[in-house]
Amino acid sequence: MTITAADIAAMDAADPLAKFRDEFVIRDGLIYLDGNSLGVLPKRTIARMNTTINEEWAQGLITSWVGADWVNAPTRIGDKIARLLGAEPGEIIAGESTSINIFKALTAALSLQEGRKVLLTETGNFPTDNYMMQGLARFSGGSLECREVAPEDVLDALDEDVAVLLLTQVHYKTSRIRDMAEVTAKAHAKGVLTVWDLSHSSGAIEVDLNGAEADFAVGCGYKFLNGGPGAPGFLFAAKRHHDAQPVLSGWFGHAAPFDFDGEFKPASGIDRFQCGTPPVLGLAALEEGVDIMLEADMAKVRAKSVQLTELFVTLMEERCGEFGFEFICPRDPAQRGSQVAFAHPHAYEMMQALKARDVVGDFRAPNIMRFGVTPLYLAFADIAEAVERLRAICVNAEWDREEYRTKAAVT
Amino acid sequence: MTITAADIAAMDAADPLAKFRDEFVIRDGLIYLDGNSLGVLPKRTIARMNTTINEEWAQGLITSWVGADWVNAPTRIGDKIARLLGAEPGEIIAGESTSINIFKALTAALSLQEGRKVLLTETGNFPTDNYMMQGLARFSGGSLECREVAPEDVLDALDEDVAVLLLTQVHYKTSRIRDMAEVTAKAHAKGVLTVWDLSHSSGAIEVDLNGAEADFAVGCGYKFLNGGPGAPGFLFAAKRHHDAQPVLSGWFGHAAPFDFDGEFKPASGIDRFQCGTPPVLGLAALEEGVDIMLEADMAKVRAKSVQLTELFVTLMEERCGEFGFEFICPRDPAQRGSQVAFAHPHAYEMMQALKARDVVGDFRAPNIMRFGVTPLYLAFADIAEAVERLRAICVNAEWDREEYRTKAAVT
Repeated sequence: MTITAADIAAMDAADPLAKFRDEFVIRDGLIYLDGNSLGVLPKRTIARMNTTINEEWAQGLITSWVGADWVNAPTRIGDKIARLLGAEPGEIIAGESTSINIFKALTAALSLQEGRKVLLTETGNFPTDNYMMQGLARFSGGSLECREVAPEDVLDALDEDVAVLLLTQVHYKTSRIRDMAEVTAKAHAKGVLTVWDLSHSSGAIEVDLNGAEADFAVGCGYKFLNGGPGAPGFLFAAKRHHDAQPVLSGWFGHAAPFDFDGEFKPASGIDRFQCGTPPVLGLAALEEGVDIMLEADMAKVRAKSVQLTELFVTLMEERCGEFGFEFICPRDPAQRGSQVAFAHPHAYEMMQALKARDVVGDFRAPNIMRFGVTPLYLAFADIAEAVERLRAICVNAEWDREEYRTKAAVT
Repeated sequence: MTITAADIAAMDAADPLAKFRDEFVIRDGLIYLDGNSLGVLPKRTIARMNTTINEEWAQGLITSWVGADWVNAPTRIGDKIARLLGAEPGEIIAGESTSINIFKALTAALSLQEGRKVLLTETGNFPTDNYMMQGLARFSGGSLECREVAPEDVLDALDEDVAVLLLTQVHYKTSRIRDMAEVTAKAHAKGVLTVWDLSHSSGAIEVDLNGAEADFAVGCGYKFLNGGPGAPGFLFAAKRHHDAQPVLSGWFGHAAPFDFDGEFKPASGIDRFQCGTPPVLGLAALEEGVDIMLEADMAKVRAKSVQLTELFVTLMEERCGEFGFEFICPRDPAQRGSQVAFAHPHAYEMMQALKARDVVGDFRAPNIMRFGVTPLYLAFADIAEAVERLRAICVNAEWDREEYRTKAAVT
């Protein structure tokens, strides 16, 4: 049964999230399937940045740390993110890059795991996660060991030597969802603490950190949360772990930062995982993106995400089935995040040709075309149109042009 | 010989930097002596943020990483900061908070100092510097030792056990300038590497990192560089140390971040000290502040800074001499940074009373009034007027009001 234009129109007509598209700046004609790399600009962020810069900074100056509540932005925004992820107020702090937050989470977990020396993760994880683990193990001079096993061997590798297991919940290439509750339970059975990377989860799928008894987690602000380029990320630490020792113990993690004590005394709650002065401009933009996400119901976001990826896969079979694309994500939508990915020998050139036709996705080495699906600002018609443009590129062999072959850095 | 209004007017008339004031947004009537806590908003930053948000982010989206050169912002801005500090291109990277940069510098230095276990600094340093050292030593579980000695004992404490000496060049309270060349030479004579905190130096005094043979340095973007609240800081690593191992080894420090390798291989130059995705919004604002500073000659900035602090001290003696202020900075301007500080039993209340009269400075516990002096946007008349307002507060005992006694967080 072929999907018709009328079917697509009916899906859009029935979409309870359709109204959110108007919250974002999206150029006419552009089909942006890269919101899992960099989310689009929320319109309200323009006004917020204007206020932050021209009123709070320019007029309030130093007094805005209190007067505009800059000083509480990391916890205030953290509490908002907590509502998206099944965490309690006081369990998430916003700030720092995801990479720095991974280091914070790993070292916090280690401080609770005396005598255990293994940091465990899977191969093929998003590189920065494993790089941060490798850097930590290298620095330890042998007292810590970084152990990377194949994805299917992770559960068997859990043993009494393992201090902490670092996993990404939604894989950046394959979109595969790990069962956070199941994996965490198996880790806990061996006394292992968990660090979950939620970069492709936050704002993309339903997450229940406390329901899964997660220990620590980190996430990214510039993808599905639409926090802007290089937005601050966040760190989750379950309340039972708030006696963990911060290694990156900067003044904003002190119990009384403005007492200018000589000795570091960690704050009692999630604040102890702060470090330097918070990045006010980045946090302001992030807060607007998070606020919009809170206005949408995550259950509806997830439901539409599943519909969108199902439509994408079905249309790729119907309209591009003869062109050699291999779908590399789980077929079962329950095991798939908010993106689809296809392997193709000419993935790079095709992604360039798509860009020329105003469809933006990601190329991921060596041969993956990755398309992010963002329910707040994508219509079902966008998916259908993107597949049609890809079909045209295949039918006309448009990808086989000299100018599409040059490799450039793509993030 | 009393300073007259005519003297002040003559100083302003002769000021080669007077034209820079028009580059900044400063409300009429406000005398802002806190640019060493948070610099004011450059007018050009408004346009830059508009471009970054409404064109690069909104329109360029993911392609702006290359198209708007976001990907090179950390090195591009680092190279600009290098021109202010006597460093070469490729020796400074912009990004992260000062605290994180301290951790990076300390651990990079340690990777070059096998067998040495002592981290040395002085007591009374800006707290976050020492906190970061303490956190690192605590994490090492005894393999590193954090040694904090009185400022006057630092040079004597240099010995063959010391791996790294961390010092702030311009002290945050007393304004005292350390002789970077002399201290570094004495450290090197014992095989000790140096990390200099330039938070109150960058854009404030003339710095010659390579002339002093400095090893590593860090600095702050939101003070004299006018980079905005919580602006990214920066890290300097002398070229001879670019084989140091990064501990915070995130994907932006990799030799080929977009190859998505499983194994961390550090970039060959200063890029290896990057970590996560760069904070684009914060970096954009920082670049504008740095650009203005580059348009001024640092020799002229320093000369005016000395004139301004000299005027401040002289006027405080002439106009407020009878009210019990104790000047706690070096008398010799060559040993004093771009701020003045006075101890007073009612420092807190007086700073509140000054704020009510539209003069903004900093209170620093327990009894210090600190006034930052920023030659790009302060006139000599501002200093004179600030002292007059303080005199009025003393003469009328304005500080002795109930509402000025409540302590609140002040940064």
